[in-house]
Amino acid sequence: MSRGSIDTPAFMPVGTQATIKTLHPDEVARSGAQIILANTYHLMLRPGLEVIQAAGGVHRFMRWSGPILTDSGGFQIFSLATQVKVREEGATFRSHIDGSRHLLTPERAIQLQHGFGSDIMMQLDHVVGYPAEPGQFRKAMLRSSRWLKRCLDEHNRLNAGEQGYALFGITQGGMDAETRKESAQLVAEADVAGCAIGGLSVGEPKKLMLEMLEATTPELPPTKPRYLMGVGSPEDLWKCVALGVDMFDCVLPTRLARNAAMFTPEGRVSIRSARYRNHHQSLDPTCDCETCTTFTAAYVHHLFRAEEVLGLRLASVHNLRFLARQMESIRTSLAEGTFASQMRLFLATYKPAGPR
Amino acid sequence: MSRGSIDTPAFMPVGTQATIKTLHPDEVARSGAQIILANTYHLMLRPGLEVIQAAGGVHRFMRWSGPILTDSGGFQIFSLATQVKVREEGATFRSHIDGSRHLLTPERAIQLQHGFGSDIMMQLDHVVGYPAEPGQFRKAMLRSSRWLKRCLDEHNRLNAGEQGYALFGITQGGMDAETRKESAQLVAEADVAGCAIGGLSVGEPKKLMLEMLEATTPELPPTKPRYLMGVGSPEDLWKCVALGVDMFDCVLPTRLARNAAMFTPEGRVSIRSARYRNHHQSLDPTCDCETCTTFTAAYVHHLFRAEEVLGLRLASVHNLRFLARQMESIRTSLAEGTFASQMRLFLATYKPAGPR
Repeated sequence: MSRGSIDTPAFMPVGTQATIKTLHPDEVARSGAQIILANTYHLMLRPGLEVIQAAGGVHRFMRWSGPILTDSGGFQIFSLATQVKVREEGATFRSHIDGSRHLLTPERAIQLQHGFGSDIMMQLDHVVGYPAEPGQFRKAMLRSSRWLKRCLDEHNRLNAGEQGYALFGITQGGMDAETRKESAQLVAEADVAGCAIGGLSVGEPKKLMLEMLEATTPELPPTKPRYLMGVGSPEDLWKCVALGVDMFDCVLPTRLARNAAMFTPEGRVSIRSARYRNHHQSLDPTCDCETCTTFTAAYVHHLFRAEEVLGLRLASVHNLRFLARQMESIRTSLAEGTFASQMRLFLATYKPAGPR
Repeated sequence: MSRGSIDTPAFMPVGTQATIKTLHPDEVARSGAQIILANTYHLMLRPGLEVIQAAGGVHRFMRWSGPILTDSGGFQIFSLATQVKVREEGATFRSHIDGSRHLLTPERAIQLQHGFGSDIMMQLDHVVGYPAEPGQFRKAMLRSSRWLKRCLDEHNRLNAGEQGYALFGITQGGMDAETRKESAQLVAEADVAGCAIGGLSVGEPKKLMLEMLEATTPELPPTKPRYLMGVGSPEDLWKCVALGVDMFDCVLPTRLARNAAMFTPEGRVSIRSARYRNHHQSLDPTCDCETCTTFTAAYVHHLFRAEEVLGLRLASVHNLRFLARQMESIRTSLAEGTFASQMRLFLATYKPAGPR
C-alpha cells in the first residue's frame, strides 16, 4: 500500500463525509487508528468528485495521511437513497439530500473511488435488506458476482499497472449458509486484493451473524485480508477475529459517543447517568485515551447535561481508543498465542448491550 | 495573580458553562488566549457549586490552567432568568433551565465565585435593559454601588489576607453620560482591583457606546485595569483600546463561528458561501491558526454544508486566533508607539458587519 502498511486485525473508524464525526484527524490518528473508511455514496453527492479531485484527493481534502478505504456506495444506496431501481447495468436512485437523480454502475463506482484516491476500494454490490426471501439473496449475490468482474476490469484499466491501489470483492448471500458459501467461493476465485463480507449486522440475531460468518471465512483464501463490513462492537471484534476476520469498520463507537454511551471494560455506560455527577476521576482508570487521562467523568457528564459539543468529542475519542486498544490486545494475544484465553477474559467481564 | 500574569490589552474567550463552546482547553490556549471567562449564573445552576468544589474548583473541573474571570451572574439573571425581582437584599429569579427559584445577593455572588476558585471576580450589579428611562439607570447604578460595598466586605472576609484573588467593581449608568461619570467615580473610590464597564453593547448604536465609554474611562484610576464587558468585534477592540480599555470578553468569535461566520482581514465572511466550494487554500493566508495552517476553506465549507461538528470547531479556532492576533498587534503597536497608525491601517481594510 502506497501509504504504508497497517497492522491487522484492524478496526477502521468511519469518516462518512470525509470526517470522523466530531474529531480532528490528528485525534483519530492518536487514538491508534491506522486506516479509516469514507463513504463513496456520501462523497459523490457532497462535495462531489470534482471538488475532491480539485483538492488533490480525499486524503488531502480531509488531512488524513494514512490509508483510506472507501466503500462502493452500494450499501447506502439501499439504505439512504430513494426510488432505487436496480438493473444489470447498475442502480439508479435519488439523492437523500436534494432528490437529484443518479446512476451508479460498477464502472462508475470504481471511477469514483479512483478519483477520490482511495487506497482500498470496494466493488459495487447489490445489497438486499434483511429479512428477505432466500431466492432474492441468491439472485442479488450472483449479480454482485457479475458486477465484481466489471469492477475488476475497470480497476485494472484505471490502475494501468500502477501499484498501491487495491480492490476488494464483497461476499453476500443474506442469511442462507449455502448462498454465503457459494458467494465466498466466487469471490475467492476472483483476482481481488481482499475479500469483504457484506450484508451482515443488518438486524439479524448475533448468533445468526456468526453462523453466516462461519459459512463464509473457510472458503476465502487464507493469504488475502478478510474485511467484515459494518461490525464493530467490542465483543464482536473478538468473536469475529476468532472466526478469521482481519478488518472491521463500524459507526458504532462514534455514534454511541454522540448518544452519551461510552465503553468501559465492564460494558458500555451512559455518561449522562446521575451516578457520574460527582465522579471526579476518569471514567475508566485503565484507559490511556486523551479523554480519560485529562478529564473526569463528572466533567464529561456535565458537558452532556449542558449539551456542550465538547462532550461528543471527548466521548468519541474515548470510544475509538477503546476499540483500538481491543485490536492491540487482539494482535498481541495472537502473536503470543494467547488469543483464546484473552478473549475468554474479555468476554467474562464485558457485558454487551441489548440482545445477543 | 496566583495563576500567572496576563498581557494586556487582553481578549477573554467565554466559557459560559465551563467550556469554550466546541473547543478543547488546549486549543483555546494555543489560540493565544491567556485568560478566559466563565459565567457564575450558568455554573451555579449547572453543575452547581457543590460539584465544582468537589472537583477542586472550576480550573481543575474544565482543565484550564490559566487565570479565569467569572462574572457575578447579574447580567444573565436579567437576560436569561424569569420572574426576576430585585430588592435591596438581592435578586430573586427562576432558573431558565428547570424553573427552580433562587436568590442571588451580593454576598452570595462573591461566595459562589470564591467557591469556583475564580481568579478575578465581579461584583453583583443591577443591570437595566436598553432602552430604559435615565432615572431607572441611575437608581440601578446607585444600588450597584451599594452592592459593591457588600461584595467587597464579603470578599475581604473570605479572602482573609490571602493573595491572588481579585474583585472588580462594575460601572453602569445606561446611556446617560452624567450617570456613567458618576458611576465611574464611585467605583474609582472603592478598594477594587479593577474596574469593569457594564451595560454597554446591549443593542445601542456603536457611536453611543463609544460616547458612554468616553464618559467613563477618564474617571477611572489609571493604575487599575479597565474591563469592558461583552465587547469583542475586531473593530471595537481597536477603538476601545484607544479609549483606554485593557480587557474584553465576548461570545462573538465562537458564536459567529458556529454560524459559519469567520473573520478575515477584510471583514467577516460566511464559509458556507458557494465561493468557497472550490477554494483549495486556507481561508486567510495571513493567519497562523491551526485551522488555516491545516485545512482549506473548501474543506471547512464542506463541513458546514454537510453539518459536520468539526466545522464548528475549526471556525471557532480560527476566530479566537484572529482576535488573539488583534490583541497581539495592539500590544506590539502600543509598545512601539505605533498604535494610532496601526489602528488606521486595520480599520481601512476591515469592513465591520451590520450597522456601525
